[in-house]
Amino acid sequence: MLAGGFRDIYAVNPKAQGVDEIPGVAAVTGIGRPVDLAVIASPAATVAAVLEDCAAAGVKVAVVITAGFSEAGNVAGEEEIKRIARGSGIRVVGPNCAGILNTGYNLYPTLEVRPPAGHTALISQSGALGGAVLAWAEEQGLGISKFVSYGNRVDVDEVDLLAYLADDPDTVVVALYIESVRDGREFMRAVHAFTRRKPLVVIKSGRSRSGQRATLSHTGSLAGADAAYDAALRQCGAIRVDTVEEMFDLCKGFAHVPPVRGRRIAIVTNSGGPGVMAADWDEKLGIDVAEPSPALREKLASFLPAHCALRNPFDLTVEGTEDGYRRTLEAVLTEYDAALALNVNTPYLDSAALARGICDAADATGKPVVATFMAGSTVVDALPVLKARGIPNYAIGERGVTVLARMA
Amino acid sequence: MLAGGFRDIYAVNPKAQGVDEIPGVAAVTGIGRPVDLAVIASPAATVAAVLEDCAAAGVKVAVVITAGFSEAGNVAGEEEIKRIARGSGIRVVGPNCAGILNTGYNLYPTLEVRPPAGHTALISQSGALGGAVLAWAEEQGLGISKFVSYGNRVDVDEVDLLAYLADDPDTVVVALYIESVRDGREFMRAVHAFTRRKPLVVIKSGRSRSGQRATLSHTGSLAGADAAYDAALRQCGAIRVDTVEEMFDLCKGFAHVPPVRGRRIAIVTNSGGPGVMAADWDEKLGIDVAEPSPALREKLASFLPAHCALRNPFDLTVEGTEDGYRRTLEAVLTEYDAALALNVNTPYLDSAALARGICDAADATGKPVVATFMAGSTVVDALPVLKARGIPNYAIGERGVTVLARMA
Repeated sequence: MLAGGFRDIYAVNPKAQGVDEIPGVAAVTGIGRPVDLAVIASPAATVAAVLEDCAAAGVKVAVVITAGFSEAGNVAGEEEIKRIARGSGIRVVGPNCAGILNTGYNLYPTLEVRPPAGHTALISQSGALGGAVLAWAEEQGLGISKFVSYGNRVDVDEVDLLAYLADDPDTVVVALYIESVRDGREFMRAVHAFTRRKPLVVIKSGRSRSGQRATLSHTGSLAGADAAYDAALRQCGAIRVDTVEEMFDLCKGFAHVPPVRGRRIAIVTNSGGPGVMAADWDEKLGIDVAEPSPALREKLASFLPAHCALRNPFDLTVEGTEDGYRRTLEAVLTEYDAALALNVNTPYLDSAALARGICDAADATGKPVVATFMAGSTVVDALPVLKARGIPNYAIGERGVTVLARMA
Repeated sequence: MLAGGFRDIYAVNPKAQGVDEIPGVAAVTGIGRPVDLAVIASPAATVAAVLEDCAAAGVKVAVVITAGFSEAGNVAGEEEIKRIARGSGIRVVGPNCAGILNTGYNLYPTLEVRPPAGHTALISQSGALGGAVLAWAEEQGLGISKFVSYGNRVDVDEVDLLAYLADDPDTVVVALYIESVRDGREFMRAVHAFTRRKPLVVIKSGRSRSGQRATLSHTGSLAGADAAYDAALRQCGAIRVDTVEEMFDLCKGFAHVPPVRGRRIAIVTNSGGPGVMAADWDEKLGIDVAEPSPALREKLASFLPAHCALRNPFDLTVEGTEDGYRRTLEAVLTEYDAALALNVNTPYLDSAALARGICDAADATGKPVVATFMAGSTVVDALPVLKARGIPNYAIGERGVTVLARMA
C-alpha cells in the first residue's frame, strides 16, 4: 500500500501498534475519519467483531483475507460475516481470499506479485490461481487493470463483479476463474449482459469426476454438471478455455487486437514447416486458410521475388524482409479478415526490422494481426518491438491462429 | 567448427582463398589427406562438380546445405546429385538442409544456434523448424545429442537416421519432424524397430487439406492421407504430437524421468485450483487420478497437518513445506505409478526448498515425478534446483499430467 503512494493508512490491532510509518489504532472507530477500505487479516475468530467495528465506523468495503470459514467447516463463522454484511450494508470481499488490486490507482492491498498495468481484469475464485496469473503476467506480456480474489464470496460475487467491470473504462476484457457459481440463472444473465459489451474468457474447473471431487474438498462447493456449464457459457457469449495458457493467449488478443470480423485467415511466413503446422489447425478451429484471389496473386507477384509462394500460407522464404512482410500483409489484408505473421529467425538476421514491417502493416490496415516469432535468443530483438506496438506474440503459430479463430 | 575445437579444416573454393586461420584450397582432392566430412554450400549449379571432387578424394559424408533443387523445380540437378552419391558410395545429407550437429563431438557444421548438450536427438525435414527447436532448446530446458536436417533427402533419409540413432549411446529419445516419407512401408518398419528400443516423438505436419496443399508447395512432396499416418504411427509405437511445445514437453519427460509403468497418477499440490485443473484432464488423457487406499490415508494423516486433503489431488495447502512435499510424495508413490508435484509459490516463500523436497522424493523412490512450479518471478529459485536434479518442470500442471499419460 505504501509503495503504491498511499499515506493515509492505519494499522488496526488490539495493542494499537504501528508498523513503520503507519500509525496504530485499537479500532476502526478510533480513526475518527471516513475510511474507504478495510483489509482484514486478523484470526478467523476475531473477524466478525472487526467487521462490526468497520460497520460502526461507516466503512464501505472490507476485504477479508482471513481463511478458516466454510472451506474449513466453519459454516457458522461465515454465516455471521454474511449477517453483518447484510445488516450494515458494508460490502465484503472474501473471506478466504487473496485480496484485490487496481493498477490504475496503484492500489495493492494484497500479498500477490504486482503485475504490469493493462486492460485485462482478472476475477478468481481461487486465490492461488489468481496469484499465479499475476506473477506470470509480466513474462506473458499481459497487463492487468483490476484483480479480485473473492474466495468464499459471502457477499461480493461473480455477478456483482461482472456488472462493475462492464462499466470500467480501464477494462477491455475479463478473465474469470470459477469452480462453482452461487446462482446459475443469475450468473448466466450477468454473463449475457456482460458479453454484449466486452469479451469474457472463462476457466470453469471441475470438468471431470475427479476434478469435481477435488473441487468439493477444496472449496466445499459442488461444481455441478460440466456439460451444462459448457452449453450455458457458450449460449451467453462467454469463451470457455481449459488452461491458464489459453487464457493468457486469448486475453492478449482481445486487449490488443481489433475485432476479428470473419474466419478467412492469412498466414504470412518465412518458413514452410511452421507455416504448414499453423495451417493444419484450420479444420479443428473452423477457420478458412483460403487461397488468394487471382487479383491478389497478381498483386503479390508484382513485388515478391519469384521463389515466394503466392498461396496461403504465403511463404516469403528465409529471404523474407521487413518490406516483404509489410507489403505482403498490407496486400493480403485487403481480402482476409486477419493474419498471422510467422517468423523463424536465423541467428544472423535482424528480427527487430521484420517485427517493424509487421507492426507497420497492422497499423496501416487497422486489421487484426498476431505474430509468432520463433525462437529463443534469435528473436529477442523482435519481442520488445512487438510489445511496444501492441502486437501479441505467440510462441508457436498454432496458438496465434487459435486466438484469431476464437476471437472471430 | 573452429569454436568447437576443430583445427584440421580447409576452405575449398575456386580461388583457394583461406578464411581467418583456415587454409584455402581449390579442390578437395588438393587437400592430400583423408577427409571425414564435407560441408557444401556452393551455388546449386556447382554442387555436382564439388561432389565429384569429394568422391574422388574419398570423402565419406557430404552435407549439402545449398538449396535450389527439386523444391525449386530443379529435378534434374537433384537427380545428378543422387547419381553421384549412388555411384561413389559417398553418403549425402541434403540438399536444401540446415546441416547437422553433434554436441558430444562439439561438431557444429551449421548456421543454427548451438543448443545445450543432452539426450534428445532431433531429425527434421524442415531446416527452419529444426533451427527454431535448437534456438528454443536452452529456454525450454531440453538438451540435444544430435541434430540432422536432411532436406530433400537424395540419400540419407529418416530410415537411415532412425537405424543409426537406435544404437547411439548419447541418445535416449528421438524427436522427428516430417512432412512426408520416402517409402511408407520401409519407414514404418524402421519406426517399429526403433520404438522397441527407444521412444520416438513424431510431428507429422500436413494434417488438414490446406496444410497438405502448403506442404506440396513447400517441399514438392505429397503428404498423403493423414489418418493413415496416424494409425500407422500408433501401431508402430511412435507418439505423434501436434506442436513443438508438446514435443519439448514429451522429450523432456523421456530424457529425464524413469519409465511410467501404469496410469495411476498422484497429484501433490499446495493449491486447490491448479490441482483441480490438472485432475480435470484425467478422462481426456485416460489416466486414473484415483483415491488413496485407507492404509495410505492413515499413513498421510500420521504426519500431515489436519487441514490437508487426504485425497487425490493431495492438497498440502499454502502451508506446504519441503518436508511435506518429500514425505507425501514418498508415501503416495508406494501406491501410484507416477506423480505431478504442483506448487503455486507465494512471493515470500522459498521455492528452492520445496523443489529440493520434491527432488529428494523422486530420488528416494526411483519413481517418475514431474513438477509444475507456478509462476514467474516467484519460482525463479526453484527452477535451477529442478534442472540440476533432472526433474522436468512444466508451466502448467495440465502439461505435466499429459506427459505422464503419454509416457505410460
